[in-house]
Amino acid sequence: MNYNDLFNIIEDKERVKLGSEIGDKYLSDALNRDKGKAEALVFAVNTEEVSKVMKLAYENNIPVTPRGAGTGLVGATVPHKSGIILDLSLMNNILEMDENTFTVTVEPGLHLVQLQKFVEDRGFFYPPDPGEKNASIGGNISTNAGGMRAVKYGVTRNYVMGLEVVLADGSVLNLGGKVIKNSSGLDMKDLIIGSEGTLGIITKAILKIIPKPQRTVSALISFNSLKEGIDTVIKIIKKNANPTAIEFMEKDVIENAERFLELKFPCSTGNAYILLTFDGDEEFEIENNCKKVEEAALKNNALEFILLREKEDIERTWRIRGALVTAVEAVSEQEPIDIVVPIDRSADFIAYTKEAEREFGIKISSFGHAGDGNVHLCVIRNGMEEKLWNEKSKLLLEALYKKGHQLKGLPSGEHGIGLHKRPYFMEITDKINIEYMRRIKRVFDEKGILNPGKSYS
Amino acid sequence: MNYNDLFNIIEDKERVKLGSEIGDKYLSDALNRDKGKAEALVFAVNTEEVSKVMKLAYENNIPVTPRGAGTGLVGATVPHKSGIILDLSLMNNILEMDENTFTVTVEPGLHLVQLQKFVEDRGFFYPPDPGEKNASIGGNISTNAGGMRAVKYGVTRNYVMGLEVVLADGSVLNLGGKVIKNSSGLDMKDLIIGSEGTLGIITKAILKIIPKPQRTVSALISFNSLKEGIDTVIKIIKKNANPTAIEFMEKDVIENAERFLELKFPCSTGNAYILLTFDGDEEFEIENNCKKVEEAALKNNALEFILLREKEDIERTWRIRGALVTAVEAVSEQEPIDIVVPIDRSADFIAYTKEAEREFGIKISSFGHAGDGNVHLCVIRNGMEEKLWNEKSKLLLEALYKKGHQLKGLPSGEHGIGLHKRPYFMEITDKINIEYMRRIKRVFDEKGILNPGKSYS
Ligand SMILES: Cc1cc2nc3c(=O)[nH]c(=O)nc-3n(C[C@H](O)[C@H](O)[C@H](O)COP(=O)(O)OP(=O)(O)OC[C@H]3O[C@@H](n4cnc5c(N)ncnc54)[C@H](O)[C@@H]3O)c2cc1C
Ligand SMILES: Cc1cc2nc3c(=O)[nH]c(=O)nc-3n(C[C@H](O)[C@H](O)[C@H](O)COP(=O)(O)OP(=O)(O)OC[C@H]3O[C@@H](n4cnc5c(N)ncnc54)[C@H](O)[C@@H]3O)c2cc1C
Repeated sequence: MNYNDLFNIIEDKERVKLGSEIGDKYLSDALNRDKGKAEALVFAVNTEEVSKVMKLAYENNIPVTPRGAGTGLVGATVPHKSGIILDLSLMNNILEMDENTFTVTVEPGLHLVQLQKFVEDRGFFYPPDPGEKNASIGGNISTNAGGMRAVKYGVTRNYVMGLEVVLADGSVLNLGGKVIKNSSGLDMKDLIIGSEGTLGIITKAILKIIPKPQRTVSALISFNSLKEGIDTVIKIIKKNANPTAIEFMEKDVIENAERFLELKFPCSTGNAYILLTFDGDEEFEIENNCKKVEEAALKNNALEFILLREKEDIERTWRIRGALVTAVEAVSEQEPIDIVVPIDRSADFIAYTKEAEREFGIKISSFGHAGDGNVHLCVIRNGMEEKLWNEKSKLLLEALYKKGHQLKGLPSGEHGIGLHKRPYFMEITDKINIEYMRRIKRVFDEKGILNPGKSYS
Repeated sequence: MNYNDLFNIIEDKERVKLGSEIGDKYLSDALNRDKGKAEALVFAVNTEEVSKVMKLAYENNIPVTPRGAGTGLVGATVPHKSGIILDLSLMNNILEMDENTFTVTVEPGLHLVQLQKFVEDRGFFYPPDPGEKNASIGGNISTNAGGMRAVKYGVTRNYVMGLEVVLADGSVLNLGGKVIKNSSGLDMKDLIIGSEGTLGIITKAILKIIPKPQRTVSALISFNSLKEGIDTVIKIIKKNANPTAIEFMEKDVIENAERFLELKFPCSTGNAYILLTFDGDEEFEIENNCKKVEEAALKNNALEFILLREKEDIERTWRIRGALVTAVEAVSEQEPIDIVVPIDRSADFIAYTKEAEREFGIKISSFGHAGDGNVHLCVIRNGMEEKLWNEKSKLLLEALYKKGHQLKGLPSGEHGIGLHKRPYFMEITDKINIEYMRRIKRVFDEKGILNPGKSYS
């Protein structure tokens, strides 16, 4: 096709880049591992433009890679089949805040941090809280992003009430709305959520918000071993103590982040930690929940239970938690893993990573969302020679995904599959599931132009 | 096809009924409005049998109507294209209770009441609570049933973690599992939920349970007008008072149910009521939430705020609420409506029903789930002559669905579309949505044998 036709759609010439004008960062994602190539990069500003670009691509059988903020960790925005990169970052308006239906309607390019601030300034709260605050809402929806607060509040999926989606041929589909319940025909909205740009382009989202909780406290608990920490988590959940977040981490990852940020973690006992937050409106409610957790922890061999009440302490501790990956990356190339297992198998899975470390001679840091069995590993290169690293890390990853599968887990809890996790996903997923996913793909995109070769497709 | 072939699959001859052996109740649903006909009724006892029956039906192009407990209200179990009725009621085992992952794995024929009792006896809680406790879990999932506790806990969809599904050709698909988060490929599980038996037969479900709340109280508030009551609901939600249920009802419906049950409603002031429950573990938490609600209500012209603390009072009041439809049905034929509107439009919608009552000369009782905008209406025949009733009620229903649509609502919040609501659903749903639903249907059931002609199909 003649990519100059794009200028007939996009009036502002600045918003179309062709060939070598395309900046490097648009050819990859946050990890910058794989680099694709593309013929055109388009910055759309409204649904109509998105629709026209898709129509043109459809008529010419051109691959389209949708792009939000490019903070993904699985290579899902790498345009590895060339074609057009369709960037949504300029569609970043907040279209409506509706206090009576507890909804906010936004464009997909809006950053999470902007949404959070906007609603919090008005006394409301958008609960999903993945680590990267400069991700876009469209990206969050397309990966079904999770994050810290999923234990109490659930993941992105649980806050998407309505979607406007441009399909492969340029037609526009409206799904859901401001209604809270829906048993009216097939649920296509949930099919789009988490589909990593393979079924359509999200151009608008109606999101659920809730009244903002008035108080937050955090608690940090140290243990001799991670196993004791993770065992405690199940006991906490059984006590109905309603924590907002439950994270786990080992001492070495924390120490690395302390060095990186030049900040001090508020606990020095033990080899493993669990870090919790509680939120709510009433002090007695939160105090009571903290007490339940303290009891459960001390009964389960906790060394120390530290309540963090001061804003400064809370922020510092969570800043360290938030920087774990970046701190590892600063030291060495690493491969992030996002396996999710049934919550009572987390400890088994982590025990296996220790075995695997020894077997493969590769360091693995582990931390993650203890409250939902979502284990984040950093498989760390540590200067290993390239060929050896490529070979060995691949075998190690295969072993880890297989173990996760044996424990009845899944390859991704929140990052998605994209390009990088695709081989492992394909290996362990039932053939019939892949077959039906592909058939559904053909319903929405019979020419296979939308983010081809990503995830199941 | 030769329906005697079914005996090759089902060894126990008692579990296959042919032609006139099929009891009348299997040809309809709870309302007994439409009656279909069928060649065979099969009671399957395991996945293998379901699979073999589907394979046979598939090879012979025979329609199959899946059936749970037959308590549906929209004619979705009416076998109006003949063929086989596939009854799942004998697949009613609880397969596993896993306290560590907070899951229970069940067969689809299990009744809701049995599941609730089983988990509550063990200190756990299955939050979805639709009015009809003798519905099956498979039916609840297939209609995405809602119910009273949806305000705090969400609907059936939110508690389905995994599904085993037999597809039209007899193959078996496993979706989800015991993991809490999932960003691993397309979400086909949510497509099956609410699909009213049109995409596959649910043969197993992994359900999420939570620790059982230790306490429950109810509160009853009376108002001069329903509008004041419904306005109060939004204020309550903004106060973060976290009620489990918020129901609204008008005096005349209550009086009718009082007569029917020979029970006394615990409030005699006012013309409209809202009835709430609160649950939790701690008395101070519940008391505090009740106080917030009381304040909001009294500020909003409530006449009386009655806290129901005694088990007997709570049960009696909710028994009256639970019997509203049945009490109406005892007096007259009625058409139940399950429209859902954005929560701040409930009052407008109800105001419209009053206009419509006058315009069409047909009585409409209204009550419903005020906490989520799900308005249940009974359009009451009251002895109207048949031909007139058929004509007029159809026009009235059209007007009601149109109004719901204008208010950006949807035709069904929790009952589904089935056969009875299909014309109204088709009328107000975007053509492109229907088209894509049908395309998805063809992915799963290219011959169109699964519950044909229901909902979108
Ligand atoms: C430091 C760091 C911490 C992180 N922490 C978390 C975490 O805690 N939890 C978590 O879940 N993730 C986390 N992530 C991953 C990442 O931020 C999320 O995957 C995020 O949702 C991606 O959003 P994005 O806007 O950057 O999307 P992109 O990376 O631009 O795209 C991601 C996918 O979505 C598609 N897409 C984007 N926008 C649209 C659209 N409008 N329509 C259709 N498809 C679209 C793309 O094609 C691609 O497949 C983290 C990343 C980093 C770098
Ligand atoms: C008095 C009364 C009160 C009610 N209150 C509520 C309420 O508060 N909230 C609410 O949501 N509903 C309510 N209902 C409606 C009804 O109980 C629900 O729709 C329920 O979910 C139906 O379950 P069932 O087992 O009876 O399903 P059925 O009526 O047997 O079937 C319903 C649909 O599901 C399909 N189906 C059933 N089992 C399977 C399976 N295993 N696999 C695939 N498809 C299957 C059927 O084909 C059909 O399309 C009420 C009904 C009555 C009579």
